[in-house]
Amino acid sequence: MSDKTPRKPNFKSMVPDGDNVTRSVCAACGFIDYQNPKIVVGSVVEWEGKILLCRRAIEPRIGFWTLPAGYLELSESAEDGARREAQEEACADIEIDRLLAFYSIERISQIQLMFRARLKSPDIAAGPESQEVGLFSWDDIPWKDLAFPSVGWALRQYNETKDRSNFAPFTNPIEGL
Amino acid sequence: MSDKTPRKPNFKSMVPDGDNVTRSVCAACGFIDYQNPKIVVGSVVEWEGKILLCRRAIEPRIGFWTLPAGYLELSESAEDGARREAQEEACADIEIDRLLAFYSIERISQIQLMFRARLKSPDIAAGPESQEVGLFSWDDIPWKDLAFPSVGWALRQYNETKDRSNFAPFTNPIEGL
Repeated sequence: MSDKTPRKPNFKSMVPDGDNVTRSVCAACGFIDYQNPKIVVGSVVEWEGKILLCRRAIEPRIGFWTLPAGYLELSESAEDGARREAQEEACADIEIDRLLAFYSIERISQIQLMFRARLKSPDIAAGPESQEVGLFSWDDIPWKDLAFPSVGWALRQYNETKDRSNFAPFTNPIEGL
Repeated sequence: MSDKTPRKPNFKSMVPDGDNVTRSVCAACGFIDYQNPKIVVGSVVEWEGKILLCRRAIEPRIGFWTLPAGYLELSESAEDGARREAQEEACADIEIDRLLAFYSIERISQIQLMFRARLKSPDIAAGPESQEVGLFSWDDIPWKDLAFPSVGWALRQYNETKDRSNFAPFTNPIEGL
């Protein structure tokens, strides 16, 4: 094998010298793949009393309904990330009101920051990661077909704050601990 | 070179097949080092009207004063991370009250979650990453020797909420945008 032809990564679990935690270390090149929790940013977006949901066109949970949300990118504020995700997933131009909730999803090492937001206009359309998008009144929300537990948490917590201008952000409900 | 001897990582900037963003790719093994923003968790900790500060024993900003804070670990809630950092940096046992602020530090791709907290007892001591720790009344805070801008933001925002039990979390002040 020539030096110009990359081999494939060959990660092994081991404790690197000078460390006390097991890391993923590449046996081909010695690279230590430090893992960090990831940040998801998203929003509960309202228009005339209805809420924006997106039906997922990608795994995981393809075909299920979710809020516009996704991974924060490098050099991006949390609010900018939430606006970008609404644009990408629902072609939606949103105005962020304030932080609705922050969730610690320890099982998958995620912190989720969910904002309360409004559509600037009712013009929405499915982006490449959505099969369809829609505006749902509270009674029409497809509760049994939500993609993730935190989607249900954010919707219910949003509903509690509908008429409130000042509140502390929510965290994981007891059911999610 | 034998296959059992790891070569050294040899990262090059390139756009991987099927991607549209420049990534760091190892020429030795082909591994793509996706970078994500990092999460810092910390707290403004009070005891009888005084605030806990730690003088840093490590770079960056060695010798300057900071709040107990650090990187969230995998499989850890934001609150657990803030409690762990107070324990590690100031041997402090804290009770978290609520989220004081969330900051987007875009220049270094960080999201910081800062909590309002109390000491459970005045027993504090410098941990390995602190030169010394102390409890400071408002007028004695070493404003000119704070380690990072967000330390000053959190302290001032904390001071605004001292007598309030319900408030929305703060974000970057205008000076920090």
